[in-house]
Amino acid sequence: MVETVTMSVAEIEAFALKALIAAGTTEANAASLARSVAATEQDGIASHGLAYVPTYCLHVECGKVDGAAVPELDVIRPGLAIADAKTGFAHPAIDLGFEWLLKAAREQGIAALGLRNSYNCGILGYHTDRLASHGLLGIGFTNAPASVAPVGGKKAVVGTNPFSVAVPGAAGETRILIDQSASVIAKSEVMKHAREGKAIPEGWALGPDGEPTTDPDVALKGTMIPSGSYKGFGTALMVELMAAAMTGATLGIDASPFSGPVGGPPKTGQFFIAIDPELSSGGAFSQRVDHLIEAIVGQDGARLHGAERFEARVDADKNGVAVNAAIVEKVKEWADR
Amino acid sequence: MVETVTMSVAEIEAFALKALIAAGTTEANAASLARSVAATEQDGIASHGLAYVPTYCLHVECGKVDGAAVPELDVIRPGLAIADAKTGFAHPAIDLGFEWLLKAAREQGIAALGLRNSYNCGILGYHTDRLASHGLLGIGFTNAPASVAPVGGKKAVVGTNPFSVAVPGAAGETRILIDQSASVIAKSEVMKHAREGKAIPEGWALGPDGEPTTDPDVALKGTMIPSGSYKGFGTALMVELMAAAMTGATLGIDASPFSGPVGGPPKTGQFFIAIDPELSSGGAFSQRVDHLIEAIVGQDGARLHGAERFEARVDADKNGVAVNAAIVEKVKEWADR
Repeated sequence: MVETVTMSVAEIEAFALKALIAAGTTEANAASLARSVAATEQDGIASHGLAYVPTYCLHVECGKVDGAAVPELDVIRPGLAIADAKTGFAHPAIDLGFEWLLKAAREQGIAALGLRNSYNCGILGYHTDRLASHGLLGIGFTNAPASVAPVGGKKAVVGTNPFSVAVPGAAGETRILIDQSASVIAKSEVMKHAREGKAIPEGWALGPDGEPTTDPDVALKGTMIPSGSYKGFGTALMVELMAAAMTGATLGIDASPFSGPVGGPPKTGQFFIAIDPELSSGGAFSQRVDHLIEAIVGQDGARLHGAERFEARVDADKNGVAVNAAIVEKVKEWADR
Repeated sequence: MVETVTMSVAEIEAFALKALIAAGTTEANAASLARSVAATEQDGIASHGLAYVPTYCLHVECGKVDGAAVPELDVIRPGLAIADAKTGFAHPAIDLGFEWLLKAAREQGIAALGLRNSYNCGILGYHTDRLASHGLLGIGFTNAPASVAPVGGKKAVVGTNPFSVAVPGAAGETRILIDQSASVIAKSEVMKHAREGKAIPEGWALGPDGEPTTDPDVALKGTMIPSGSYKGFGTALMVELMAAAMTGATLGIDASPFSGPVGGPPKTGQFFIAIDPELSSGGAFSQRVDHLIEAIVGQDGARLHGAERFEARVDADKNGVAVNAAIVEKVKEWADR
């Protein structure tokens, strides 16, 4: 039985804000990040909510992230801008860029925002979801330190690189939220098995020799298996191209780790595309989305991408979020400094 | 031993052109399609080259495709246009749209072209490759009649929906070409096994009851398994959203089959995005792509996405293409009408 503390979404946000500011983050930067932490907890994704705040705080303290960075936006063409996160958190740079992106997508029909000198952006779907809440189809890509090898190879070339697509509804709600990483399983699951001394199932990871392994310690020296094998690597490669090559950010092969205090800023990247679906579809978009959703949720046993988060979202508003008490204690250590 | 006829790429193009015109396609439309047939043979993809021409001809004859259609382009915003294929071939509509797209992407930084009332566009990577040959990063999506069920469900909701990303080099060549469908295997492979009375491997398809099957006839009544399971379905869903919902084209659930003469025009869609990578990356793009490619091809046993096609391309220019003689005969039946 895990001990929990039930907090409202607003309480989570205020709590994260306090800890981040105490660690040396400016109030503006901390506010941006705290909003995402609260939204992530609200969506039921405990792994990337308050649990991540101590890492964020540590990274500000050790200089892996510049908590006082002021991001800069460079609008290169009417439909294309780059936000330089200046080795600060991704979130304030994305905020700055989205202000422009939302307007540009309406005016141009489609617009794109790239980020460089950035950092782990937390849950990617949090950001695309924001685009959808403004009536735009949002597409996102984010890269990460390399942990996935090309099929047939042994050395990691790309990260577990997620992509996300958020589908807007008529009333500011998100209808479908695809948000998936390239690996069969998150690396954190392998770490957990290593800590607990448990074998991992075959199919999760390869050892440094490129051979399948069930030993989590061997797996952590090796690579994560892409979901869908050769095609899964292709998807991860697409994300690497978009988030790093297209933005001039650091490739996963060269990026410092997202965890731990060493290696300096990872300087990885993100890429977001926003498109006005009512314009492009000639008004047919909502009907198509309704029909697709019905075809999925009308089948027993089938899950719609995003449904779990949307349900958690409503539930958290009513009942608050049960946060692991040990994590609350860890965040408190930072907040009470 | 399969009997073959060696033809030059130019001969293949002229041969396809003759057959398509004889079937009732206008010269302009036939020329657009014949170019793609020749390029597809040149890239070593026999399944979608001359082998498809008899189907194209049949579809013109039976009215599943209007061989004389004149596509229309509607530029909705500076970065967004829709080409209506008017139930003709996809290729001439894409040609029309790309003329605009290439200019718009340079001017706006990013631009998008959607297609509706369209048809099977052949090999998707043929089209994104053309964008890359002009120095742009090309992204493409195309939908197809439903054959893939959501994980846990039994009924097909989306097609084997490919996406493609083509990465330009400095000298008009394509460096990386990702072009992959959502299913573990092409449905045509299951059909081939059915014709030959051979069992299919487990993991390719499900029966109409949603259970795994090795019987190709049962599989053809059921659904194709997405590569990467839940995440693979997510990728197919992204493609459906882009190619159909975003363009106002017909969803795979409602589309008539791409094969055989019945059901009228499928009216499916495509969506293409073109981005100027030198602009977005601040000139860093080529170096990043070089570095990524080296990290992949430097590993024994790893394949770069697109490498096989690029090799076939060079080889076909030198030595021509060995085309299955039986297919040549079938195309000849149309060409000699």
